Amino acid sequence: MKNATGGVTAARGFVAGSISCGIKAGKSRRPDLALIFSTAPAVAAATFTTNAVKAAPVLISRAHLKSRSARGIIANSGNANACTGAAGNEHARRMAVAAAQSLGVREDEVFVCSTGRIGVPMPIDKVERSISQLPRLLKASGSLQAARAIMTSDSFAKETAVEFTLGGRRVRLGGIAKGAGMIDPNMATMLCFLTTDAAVAKRELQRALAIAVEQSFNRITVDGDMSTNDTVILLANGRAENAPVNATGPEFAVFQKALNEVTLRLARMIVEDGEGVTKFIELRVRGAASGRDARRVAEAIANSALVKCAWFGSDPNWGRIMDAIGYAKAKITEPMIEIFYDKLPAVRGGIATRTPIAALRKICRQQKFSITVDLHLGSAEYTVFTTDLTPRYVLFNKGE
Amino acid sequence: MKNATGGVTAARGFVAGSISCGIKAGKSRRPDLALIFSTAPAVAAATFTTNAVKAAPVLISRAHLKSRSARGIIANSGNANACTGAAGNEHARRMAVAAAQSLGVREDEVFVCSTGRIGVPMPIDKVERSISQLPRLLKASGSLQAARAIMTSDSFAKETAVEFTLGGRRVRLGGIAKGAGMIDPNMATMLCFLTTDAAVAKRELQRALAIAVEQSFNRITVDGDMSTNDTVILLANGRAENAPVNATGPEFAVFQKALNEVTLRLARMIVEDGEGVTKFIELRVRGAASGRDARRVAEAIANSALVKCAWFGSDPNWGRIMDAIGYAKAKITEPMIEIFYDKLPAVRGGIATRTPIAALRKICRQQKFSITVDLHLGSAEYTVFTTDLTPRYVLFNKGE
Repeated sequence: MKNATGGVTAARGFVAGSISCGIKAGKSRRPDLALIFSTAPAVAAATFTTNAVKAAPVLISRAHLKSRSARGIIANSGNANACTGAAGNEHARRMAVAAAQSLGVREDEVFVCSTGRIGVPMPIDKVERSISQLPRLLKASGSLQAARAIMTSDSFAKETAVEFTLGGRRVRLGGIAKGAGMIDPNMATMLCFLTTDAAVAKRELQRALAIAVEQSFNRITVDGDMSTNDTVILLANGRAENAPVNATGPEFAVFQKALNEVTLRLARMIVEDGEGVTKFIELRVRGAASGRDARRVAEAIANSALVKCAWFGSDPNWGRIMDAIGYAKAKITEPMIEIFYDKLPAVRGGIATRTPIAALRKICRQQKFSITVDLHLGSAEYTVFTTDLTPRYVLFNKGE
Repeated sequence: MKNATGGVTAARGFVAGSISCGIKAGKSRRPDLALIFSTAPAVAAATFTTNAVKAAPVLISRAHLKSRSARGIIANSGNANACTGAAGNEHARRMAVAAAQSLGVREDEVFVCSTGRIGVPMPIDKVERSISQLPRLLKASGSLQAARAIMTSDSFAKETAVEFTLGGRRVRLGGIAKGAGMIDPNMATMLCFLTTDAAVAKRELQRALAIAVEQSFNRITVDGDMSTNDTVILLANGRAENAPVNATGPEFAVFQKALNEVTLRLARMIVEDGEGVTKFIELRVRGAASGRDARRVAEAIANSALVKCAWFGSDPNWGRIMDAIGYAKAKITEPMIEIFYDKLPAVRGGIATRTPIAALRKICRQQKFSITVDLHLGSAEYTVFTTDLTPRYVLFNKGE
């Protein structure tokens, strides 16, 4: 596996483009509409938000996932088309119809995604007019433009791609993503569009995507819950002409590894772009009695405002971590707990080690460091990627 | 029921005092040790943290709650005596022994409470020396001094008391509390010491306290979890000479009402003193299918960093509230949801009303306002008291 350029258009047969349709009043020069198109019929896999309040485009895309073939994704930024009632459903459908008509494909071959403010009616006439102009703007080098058009509070466009050998053929897999510019993607919209020219059976494509999302985007989602619009879509058009990847052959593992790599890279970019964030922490919990316990402990720590404030201040305040471990509703034995900052032990047997506080503080002053909690009760593990909580985060999210 | 002065020493037969024993290095002039004493034997009720990591004083006090009589509470600030291993347990016990000896009572008649930094050894020799000097500092007007000595990040001392008639006798009930100077008492230590001169049977005293805590301190605890040290203690010494309150008579309801009033007042003071807080929000969820659902929705909203940032900015961003409702893991029907800011409807049928945004913003600019979410699925309700999230909160909690 090696790096490739081109993001979501790295794979053969994919083109992308963007346009400004003026959803964001007063910022009309910023692109806010992106189209990704597969010149050959593709199979699709997707995962959607588990939020009980689902945006209209999520409902449309979920229905279109049942279609045998897929050709494209139409996505806008600036308006989430969530909590918009029957009108919102109609607008999401009209976006799919407009894209399908302008591309000459079926409506159910197009996915629709939206991100932005909740509860605001979509300016659907403007959107439709712009969609009709998008097909002639599609380019095999259009990945970065599409990545930019789906940005909301992101400070940089996120794209990556890899190239690898699958069944004797060179294949490419890449994608673009938008994060939230926020600490906790749990409560903000995350979109990720992935493409590959590998041939993969639909069932295996869905299985591989579920596994990849679990070890990447779900690890930056603090409590497993999501925004009203979160969507990850993967299109595979088979242009590499490999024998289709199925469940039994060795190629599945090869494909999975590449997909894991791409999704993990994009997930890390989202965390690192957290608005106002100054620290990036890899938090590992090991030695848990169960996987559920490991996850509960990791999420209790990563979700603690006090722990996050201490990280912002480079304060190795492991007492706050102990406190979060204690209320995580996991099985623990206090005198067994170990906590490490990078490789230095701060807590052993549930109490402070002799590691000088200055040494721990030096680790916390780094822009990236790891914290490892060992519960010494079993062999289950869970890792999350998280950040500090900063005054800039609050100022950024305080609204008008 | 009318207001009374004197806080935790409002009730007859209770005295209190404080001293500076120098736990906080460099701030040694600040009082950090408080003693509350009942001149007559009292019965006690108490609730302790549900955190699986419990501080040493919590373990000692829980054991002493089994004693038939109680006489006093010794409490320090500046050091939590949590995550301190066997030495910590010994230190907590020595605090009880020192207080008991200096007061001439039994060790198991004394409760021990600590609040402050986790994982730091208690300077027990200094503490013991100061405890021996405390009895001669006890005064019937010592409530405020005791309230000040248990403060950590609190910006003001918290005390209140009421007087009411119980079985034909005038009785008093009052208390002091310390909060966290934090938004989420969930992760910081809350101590509350209550006294009454009413005569109440031990079993009924415990029952009344559990009910009072549930409708007060637990409503400011975002997920029902607590710090390593949280403790509420209620002493009743019977000096009012009423017929002891038991489970069957009408006096139980009278006593409960007074206790609810005092605990709710102290809980509100803790929220209002949240460090850096600028807004105080009463958040009501009604129409839920079950009490658990009502609570989940209330806590999801109150615990959302994005919702809290919007409150700081006086932004009536109800989309973030809808998002939190959606991931609360409660039964909801999106097109049934209503959201009110004070009495103004912002959402009806799951979508925006015609209420002008300027009118909603005016409500959010107030220092105190209410938000009501009606799920229209049943009759269960839950109310929490919460605050905004501010840059000052982050700066205050970033550590050294």
